[in-house]
This record gives sequence, C-alpha cells and structure tokens, in this order.
Amino acid sequence: MTGRLRAVALGGGHGLQASLAALRRLTDDVTAVVTVADDGGSSGRLRRELGLLPPGDLRKALAALSDSDSDSRLWTTVFEHRFGGSGALAGHAVGNLLMAGLLEVLGDPVEVLDHTCRLLGVRGRVLPMSTMPLDMAADVVGLDSDPDAVRTIRGQVAIASTPGRVKQVRLHANGHEQPAACEQAVKAVADADLVLLGPGSWFTSVLPHLLVPELHEALVATSAQRFVVLNLIPQPGETAGFSPEQHLDVLSQHAPRLRVDAVLADADSVPTPDRLRSAAAGMGARTQLDTIAAPGVDGRHDPQALAASLQAALERRD
Amino acid sequence: MTGRLRAVALGGGHGLQASLAALRRLTDDVTAVVTVADDGGSSGRLRRELGLLPPGDLRKALAALSDSDSDSRLWTTVFEHRFGGSGALAGHAVGNLLMAGLLEVLGDPVEVLDHTCRLLGVRGRVLPMSTMPLDMAADVVGLDSDPDAVRTIRGQVAIASTPGRVKQVRLHANGHEQPAACEQAVKAVADADLVLLGPGSWFTSVLPHLLVPELHEALVATSAQRFVVLNLIPQPGETAGFSPEQHLDVLSQHAPRLRVDAVLADADSVPTPDRLRSAAAGMGARTQLDTIAAPGVDGRHDPQALAASLQAALERRD
Repeated sequence: MTGRLRAVALGGGHGLQASLAALRRLTDDVTAVVTVADDGGSSGRLRRELGLLPPGDLRKALAALSDSDSDSRLWTTVFEHRFGGSGALAGHAVGNLLMAGLLEVLGDPVEVLDHTCRLLGVRGRVLPMSTMPLDMAADVVGLDSDPDAVRTIRGQVAIASTPGRVKQVRLHANGHEQPAACEQAVKAVADADLVLLGPGSWFTSVLPHLLVPELHEALVATSAQRFVVLNLIPQPGETAGFSPEQHLDVLSQHAPRLRVDAVLADADSVPTPDRLRSAAAGMGARTQLDTIAAPGVDGRHDPQALAASLQAALERRD
Repeated sequence: MTGRLRAVALGGGHGLQASLAALRRLTDDVTAVVTVADDGGSSGRLRRELGLLPPGDLRKALAALSDSDSDSRLWTTVFEHRFGGSGALAGHAVGNLLMAGLLEVLGDPVEVLDHTCRLLGVRGRVLPMSTMPLDMAADVVGLDSDPDAVRTIRGQVAIASTPGRVKQVRLHANGHEQPAACEQAVKAVADADLVLLGPGSWFTSVLPHLLVPELHEALVATSAQRFVVLNLIPQPGETAGFSPEQHLDVLSQHAPRLRVDAVLADADSVPTPDRLRSAAAGMGARTQLDTIAAPGVDGRHDPQALAASLQAALERRD
C-alpha cells in the first residue's frame, strides 16, 4: 500500500539516519529535511573556513538513502571516508569536502544535493532546513550555584554537551536575521502523507526544525500524518535525565499549535507508559510502544523494527 | 580512418592536456600515461600529508578527456575547482581531494582512475606511469662559479625552476628502489598504434617516462608509430635557452635505443629547421613543421591545429 507514500523525515545526525533507514523500507518517496546549525568537527571547520552550509548532517542523510548497487556503494563509502594522517585534512569526511566544492561552484545547496543524490543513487531527496548556515543558542539552567540562574549557551556542539538543563533553544542566521526556510523543504512538508520528527538529539537536531518560521507553519498546517519517534535513551548532555514525556513537553513548549497523530517509542525505554500516553494525548496523539531498539547497540533504533512500527501506526489510522 | 586508432600520450601537466585535447579529436581510444613525481602545490601537500600518489597531473589529464554532456561538465568543473579562502583547504583542487579519498579507500590507483573516468565521462583511459609516488633528482650545472660543477637538485618543482642547466634526470621510489611501471600503462604502450611524447616540461614531464625501466622498454619495443611533439617556447627554468634540436638531443641521451617516426613542431618556433631535421633524422624521424600554436596564447598548442598536424603525419606514413 505504501509504495507511493510521500514521507518526510526531519532531523539531523544519527537519529535522522535511523528514521531514513526505516522509511526507505516503506516507500521510495522519502525526503530528508536536515538541520544546518552544526558547528563542530569537519563540518564546523568547513563552515568557519569557507562560510558554507555545514555539510555533515546532509552527508549522513545522503548515505542513509543511497542505493546498494556497487557503484553507489563505492561512492557512499568514499563519501563517508575520513582522511587519516595528522595533517590539515585529518578527520575531514571526503563527502564534506566534495559537497563544499559543489557549494562553491554551484552556490545553490538544493542543486548541490540533487547532484549528489544522483552520484550516490539516492532514491528520494535530501534538503537542508535552510539554505544558509544557522547558529543556535540555548537558555540553560543548572550551570551556577543559583539553580534558577539562566545562561545563554551558543553553538550546537556546546548545547549538545552542556552539563546544565536546556530550557529553550533559538536559531538565527547571520547575527539577528530570522532563519529563512528552504522553500523545497517547506513544500515537501506541505505535500507529504507522513511527516516524521525524531529520533535524534532533541534540542539540537529535532527542535530546530520548529524554529524556522516557515517550516514551523508548514508542520502545523500540513494534512500529512505527524509522527514523533522518541529516543531510546536520554542523550548525555542536552537531555540527560529527561523522561520520554519531558521530550514531548519541550516539543509542545516550542510549538504549542503542533498537533501530533502518533508518538512511537521503544517499549523498554518508557519507564512510565501512562505518563507518556497522557503527554501524547495532550498533543492529540495516540502512543505506540514496540520493541524498536537494535539488539545490543545502546541508543540505536533497528531500522526493520522501526519500519514495522511505523507501518503499524499508519495502518492503525486507516 | 582513425576512429579505431589506439593512441597513447605520455606526459604531465598542461603539455599532456594539449596532446590529449588533440588526440581526442582523432579517436575515442586515447590512453594518457601521466607522471607521478609532482611534489608541489596541492598535489605535493597531499602527497606529504597522506603518502599518496600526487593526483594533480592525473586530474588535469582526466579533465582533458572528460565528456561535454552537462553532468560530466559539472563534475569536471568541480574537479578542477580550487578552494578559496585562506585556511587549510585554500588552493586544494576538489578533484585532488576526491582522488585522494578514493586512493585511501580503494588503494589501487588504476581502480581509482577508472572510477573517476566514469564520473567525468572520460572516453579513453588515464593511467599513472607508476602506481607509487616517485621522486626526481637532476644533475645541474651552472649553479656555481665553476661552470662545470655538477650539483644534484631534488624534487620536481626545484628541477622545473632551476636557474642552472639540467644535464640528466633520475627517478626513484622510496629512497633507492627502481621505479616500478604501472603494468596497464606498459600494456597500453605495447598495444598502441600511435605513441606521443610531448609537448610538456621536458625534464620533469616528458623524460620521466623514459626513466621507468619497463615503460622505457615498452616505448623502445612497441610496434606503434612514435611521435615527438616539441614545445612552442623554451620552458623558463629547466629548458631556458634550449633549442628544439637540443630537446631531441637530451631525449636521445636518456633513451639511446629509442627510434622516433616523426617529430612535430610549430613552424614559427623553430629558428633553424635544418638542424632540427638533422637531429630528428638521427633518431630515425621525419620532421613536420606546421602552425600549431594557439593564436595569442604564449606557449599553448591549438588542439585543432595539433590534431590536424598529427593526422597529416599519420597519413604521410600510410
């Protein structure tokens, strides 16, 4: 039934890879919408050095949707390969450098991504949430002797690893501008049958999509089903000690008008299912608990199990 | 007639680009055999940092043979693009980085080049003269107050720009090993109908092919026609003040058993045609003088004119 399902997954990093790996088992029409606020590692270096969109999360999404024929597999392997040695290139992913080169030549990130999709045999599409690099800031408590003192922490890496408790995140482009959405990403959300938020680093990969005004509006207004997939274990740093229902609470705080159709979680990762059901119901969502953790891998979803859970949630509505 | 001509061009840098641009006008079956002793620029940095084959001259040959459809053209443009800015990537050609990544993943340079050929829509093949990075040394006179004092200058960049007079060049791999030829390059020379030496930096791009023992033997033994294409103007540095016939003399000195079928030169670049004819005859070659310089571009061959000259030289034999 779902061969023609138009699915959009919003996120970044490994969490987005998990949702994409699951969705591609359900449909060929998958669009990834990817955060572009990364300021760490190879991406951060490229961004600072060349002033370009950080390519790392885009690269991971491309790899997750790449084809398995031998040519695509080779290019994906090269794309994901990080240079060795101890010199200026050490740690740079080849795909980040190639995308940076394409960005310098073509200018338009969407064009860059469409060309890269063809190289890697991607079925579907990978889009940035915004065509400009974004910066993130967070209000964080628990960093001072006064437990209510709020400090502003700047940068995705700093927020993701803060020992404090994140209360709110903000996005901006070039100092103070409102972040502009990638118009193709807005259209993909508007035209979708299914929109997936999470799993992923909650404050730095999932919530940022709700902080781009046009994307926020599209997520609120779309006629697609909206599913939220919760993480398996709290992220050390930004969501240390956060319960599953607290993840939904901060989602609501950042998007009070967002209605959700289903909240999917791993049964073993939910200590108090009733509280989660109640928080989900507050957003209009039913809760579906399945075994979706990859056996033996802490914090990773099993793509096949997540796909089955998504399929079941889709059928439950029908 | 020449649609099935198997042509091999040996060289490096811009000179090899010129011969490839001409040959592709005569046949689809062009193999470039490329020097791998570069130690300067982006290639030299990659070589020192990662211990890989210097990719720059290979990249230029690939670009010269790439297809003109829009996808190949884009990848070729990106391949040739050099990063801007003033950071660690500044000046690196994107293609050099991509080939370095492929080399780290695949190991075998021939496999790397075959994959890259497919990406760029190359008709024909690009091969390294050797699958290992090589080092060059030259005996140079004229650097001291004693005009006969011989000094050893090391490295392709240093030799190419020496203010002294180069007497002889040597190649070695990893200190003292004999440089091993790329076996596919040896086979291409053996199986060719036409083998082209030059144009290009004489000591650092053309002669090195005669310093790889198996390649030297293949060039001496092949049943192909052997053409030498001379440069338009003496290279500042390594061949400053060299006459066309002196170019042939040093070729003979480095390969006394090499017979040549034709020597092609630009009519306006040969001050003393009789001397050139006599030097060419000494190697068994007829001399063909045509207008093959690109109008208004110092030192560059016109691909169309060079192709016509090659065609005429081929027909003269028939």
